[in-house]
Order: sequence, then C-alpha cells, then structure tokens
Amino acid sequence: MTGDTQSGRRATPASRVTLDDVARRAGVSLATASRALGDHPHVAAATRARVREAAGELDYVASPEATRLAGGPTGRVAVLVPHPSRWFFGELIEGLESALRAADLDLVLFRVGGPEERAAFFDRLPARRKVDAVVVLAFAVDEAEHARLASLGVDVVVAGGRVASYPSVGIDDHGAGRQAVDHLIHLGHRRIGMIAVQDDGQLAPDPDGRRSAWRAALGDAGVEPADDLLVTVPWGGEGGADGMARLLGLRTPPTAVFAHDDETALGAVRTLRRAGLRVPEDLSVIGIDDHPLAALTDLTTVAQPVRDQGRRAGELVVAALRGELPERVPPAELLPTRLVLRGTTSPPGAPR
Amino acid sequence: MTGDTQSGRRATPASRVTLDDVARRAGVSLATASRALGDHPHVAAATRARVREAAGELDYVASPEATRLAGGPTGRVAVLVPHPSRWFFGELIEGLESALRAADLDLVLFRVGGPEERAAFFDRLPARRKVDAVVVLAFAVDEAEHARLASLGVDVVVAGGRVASYPSVGIDDHGAGRQAVDHLIHLGHRRIGMIAVQDDGQLAPDPDGRRSAWRAALGDAGVEPADDLLVTVPWGGEGGADGMARLLGLRTPPTAVFAHDDETALGAVRTLRRAGLRVPEDLSVIGIDDHPLAALTDLTTVAQPVRDQGRRAGELVVAALRGELPERVPPAELLPTRLVLRGTTSPPGAPR
Repeated sequence: MTGDTQSGRRATPASRVTLDDVARRAGVSLATASRALGDHPHVAAATRARVREAAGELDYVASPEATRLAGGPTGRVAVLVPHPSRWFFGELIEGLESALRAADLDLVLFRVGGPEERAAFFDRLPARRKVDAVVVLAFAVDEAEHARLASLGVDVVVAGGRVASYPSVGIDDHGAGRQAVDHLIHLGHRRIGMIAVQDDGQLAPDPDGRRSAWRAALGDAGVEPADDLLVTVPWGGEGGADGMARLLGLRTPPTAVFAHDDETALGAVRTLRRAGLRVPEDLSVIGIDDHPLAALTDLTTVAQPVRDQGRRAGELVVAALRGELPERVPPAELLPTRLVLRGTTSPPGAPR
Repeated sequence: MTGDTQSGRRATPASRVTLDDVARRAGVSLATASRALGDHPHVAAATRARVREAAGELDYVASPEATRLAGGPTGRVAVLVPHPSRWFFGELIEGLESALRAADLDLVLFRVGGPEERAAFFDRLPARRKVDAVVVLAFAVDEAEHARLASLGVDVVVAGGRVASYPSVGIDDHGAGRQAVDHLIHLGHRRIGMIAVQDDGQLAPDPDGRRSAWRAALGDAGVEPADDLLVTVPWGGEGGADGMARLLGLRTPPTAVFAHDDETALGAVRTLRRAGLRVPEDLSVIGIDDHPLAALTDLTTVAQPVRDQGRRAGELVVAALRGELPERVPPAELLPTRLVLRGTTSPPGAPR
C-alpha cells in the first residue's frame, strides 16, 4: 500500500513540480523559495517553514539548477546603471552603497548603457551566479530580461523609477511635473512650452508622466496644450539648447518653458542668452532635479531626493534578501518632491 | 651528510625568509610573487619561473598567510571612490568599468568619503580577501593604508592622480594650471587671482600643482604673485562663490580669476552676476575640467580626459594582474590637457 502510494506519486513525476510552483504556493518569490530550501542564513524562520511546507505538499524535488541557485549567499549585489557619470545615477549609487554597506553587502557595478551592453550583461549573468540581488537604476526591463532575472532566482529592486513587477523607489513624475507647470500658471503664464526628452528605455521610466502633467496642468487652467509647444529632444544640455531654439522659431514663442530636467533646462537658458533674451524677464524656465549646478545658476526647479531613492532601494534589497518584502504586490515607494524658487521664473512680461 | 645539510638548513629556519624577500630577489611585487607561487593563471611564464627560482634560492617555505593570499583569482577589483556622485569620479568609474569588463573583471565599488569610512574599509579588507586588485580614485594613500594594502598582496593602481609608490594615471596638474594662467596673461591680464580648493586628502592629489602653476606663470610674466590674490575654499560651487566674494572684497580686485576646477569656477561666475559684474568684460574666469556644464554655461576651461584616465587605469590593473608591469619603477602616466576657449575670458577692460 505504501509502496503503491509512492509508485503512484512517481507516476506523477515530482520533477514536473518546479521551484516556481513551490514559490507560488508559499506566496513568496522564486528567489526566496530558492534561499529557503537552500538553508540560506537570511531567510526568516516563518518563511522557511512556509516554503518547506509548500514543497512537501507538492512533493517537490529540487533540480540541480535550483540547488545551484541556492548555493548560499555571495554577499554581493549587482547594480545596473546606464550612465555612471551623470549626476542622477551617481547620487543613486551613493545612496545605494551606503545602505548595502550597512548590511555588509558589496556593490558590483555594471554599466549597461546601450542595447548591446544590456544584452551582454543578461547573457553572462546566469552562467556566473555571482550576486544575490540585482538593482536596476532607472531603466525599463523588457520581457526577455525579466525572464532571465526570474530564472536566476535573484531578487530585483528598481531605483529612480518604476517597473511594475519589482519593488521600486522613485518619485511621482506626474506630480513633480504638475508642481513645475502649476507654478508657471500661478505666475500668470498661459503659453507654456515643454522640452521633453526621448524615452530611450534608459532614462526616467516615466517621462510620459511629465508630459501628461504639462497637458493636465494646462487643461485645468483652461488652456488647450498646443502640439507645437511640446518638443522632444535627446537628453542633456545640448538637447535642451536645441529644443529651446525650436520653441523660439515658432511664430508665437512661449513665455515660459518647462524642461524635463535641470540639465535640459540649463541648455535652454544658454539658447536664450545667445539669442539676447533675458531670463526670466523675457522668458521663464523651470526644470526638475535640483542638480547642484541649479543652485549655482539660480535655476528654479522641482527638487527630487535622488540619494534617498538609492538608499531606500538598498534597504529594500536587504529586506528582500531576508524574505521580509510582500511579494505578491511589490512595494512601489514614491519619495516627495518640492518646488525650489530661484531666479529663472517670474510673471510674464515682468518690467525690464 | 645529506641529513647534516638539511639539519644545517633547519638551523637557519626557512620560515624566516618571507614572501617579501622572494619578491625582492625576483624583482617583482609582493602581489605578483604571491600569485606566481600560487599558480595563479594570469602570471606570465617567465615571471613565474623567476619567482620560483628566487624562492628556491632562498629556501622559501610558504606561510599559511601567503598560501591564502595566493588562493586564486576572485575576478573582482575594488574601486575606492570618495564621491561617486561628482562628475569627475563618475567619469573615472565609467572608464574603469569599460576596461575591467573587457577583461571579464567585476568592479566592486566602495565609497570612502571620510576618514572613518576609509578606516573601516582598510580594517575590513584583509579579513575578506575578496578582490585581486584595488583602484584608488584620486586620493592620497597614507603610510598605514599603504602597509595594509601591501600585506594583502593585492595590486594597487591610482586613477585621476598620483601616489608615487603605485602605478598611476592622471594629468600634469602644474601643466594644466600653466595653460589656464598663461592664457589669461596672453590676454593682457596681470592682476590674476586664484581660487584654490582645500586639500582634504581626497581630491586632486596635486592641488599644489595648480597653485604652483599660478605662481610660476605670474613670475615668468614679471608679476609678483600677491598673497591676497590666492584664496583657498572647500571644493565645489558654493566654495567658488565664497572665494570670488573674498577676491571682490580686496581694495584692488583682480581682473581675471583662475579657479581650481569648473564647478568652483561656476560658483565664482554666480557671485560676479549677483554683484552686477559682467563676465568677461569686467572680469575673466577660467577653470579646469571641461565639465559638460562648462559648454552649457560658455565657460573657458582647460579640458582633461577623465574617462580616458579611468580606462587607462583599468588597463594597468589588467597588466598588473598579468605581472606585465615594471614593478621597481611603477608607471606614472600623464594624459594631455588642452585649452578650450569659450565666453568667460577676454582682454582686461574690454569695451562694454
């Protein structure tokens, strides 16, 4: 009888039950299930018990791959960063490093700027199994990349943006955009341009949040957002300079401009200076970030706490490795932004 | 007879011969000697033979520590960076990452901003033995830190500056300073101020190179460098703004200012704008770096190739790990700098 039962079990091969099934039944991520079964030291006792119970109920037999995945912690976290030399990413890295170091985790930096670099990273990662978790800095993760990360059994956290399937820390891009454009409207501007940046899949994952804020703020003020007042440029100062030139080439240029970020805004200011126009008397400019050079150049902006986003993301990594994160609905934290008034905005047609 | 000889050898215990003695006799670094005896795969055959010959001649018996040190490559390089969010360090990191990745080495980032963080890193490193090499980004290494690194048997490379005992890649700070101040002199300026930055042991390891350039350029022009024209401030835009204010408070302010770097220079420009002075008509300003925002703000500067310094340092790491670097006299590479003329310099008293 016992023999029959076991035989019967074999007729439904336990090898068909995957670690994914166990994770789903236990209500934890693949990564946590892997660690729980692998006696990883950082898994909470209750989580471990729940995963083992699920594995027992499903007659789960660990595959060699799952065993390898559970080979113990490396103490390392991979951080994928598109552009390490840009202020925004440098701040995220500083915040992350402090949180990971506090947990005695090492930060392994991988630059994944272009599509080839990203492909190379995702191709090599599984063969190496060198990290416990991956932090993605402000770029979108596509389906194939998502599948690779899932198969690795590593935890994934997003910093400086949002990818719905992962825990993330960012800002409310729409809300920040509203703070900027509403300020211009309160000053009396009605013809307000926007310099948006191309979504190359690597920058703010929600650039459209800023665009939609521009449209919504104008709409709420009873102004039709004219298509020719929205220009889209490559990220950075040169892009901002070009975008401003395009807006100045309109038959009726705007009296104020909302730029996607401070560096784009500073490019816009350069174009205005070269054109002999005064900021803010002839044209107001506002950005988003509070880049250190915004203070130096007296740029009005909406400040976002970038280093805090990195630090908080590092804390989420630590919590994830301990199996302490709710896994069905990954947390999506938004840190507050605030308007910083400086010298590049004023009412339209302010006296000279 | 044979027995006697062996006994005689024991009377001069081989354990007194250290790995350091072997390294010295073979004319290689401690790190290379460790790897050569440990069958590390990246050591050149000739180097390995030389080290083994030296070890044989000295009757060297590997200590447990040396054996541990030679425990095989980790494939990881520690990068010690004071301020990851500053443009200069971000550029170095980008260059380093590309060179290390090409050699399939991982970059482990450690922020070592203040003295405590540095002490914590150097205290923990030996116990962990997690990296094959250490790259120090633009800060001075003190004696105790040097001893720790030597005892670890890891290779050390300096990027963005120079520490005499290690291979390094940087710029000629004195030469770059001369390019800046000579430009002001060629324009006709004689009363030239300098905004220097405090040497907190973490920034450009040769700030004095820029100060000495200011003195030498003035001296060569037959001008006595007045002490009150040299002000020293904390690094950054706010420091530059304060430094410029101090120079404007002199009974006879300068007609031109050489700032330690572009961010300091941009702070100086802000002070001038706030004072209602025009740049360059009333006062010329020049920096060093060619920061991306220098182009946006039309700042005249001396460009340095920062990303190239990082990349080249990464290549030196790879060469060091292969035992291919001359070790008696570590290479100290200097990459070229060049004057970039923009809109913040002009002859003194230029017509309004």
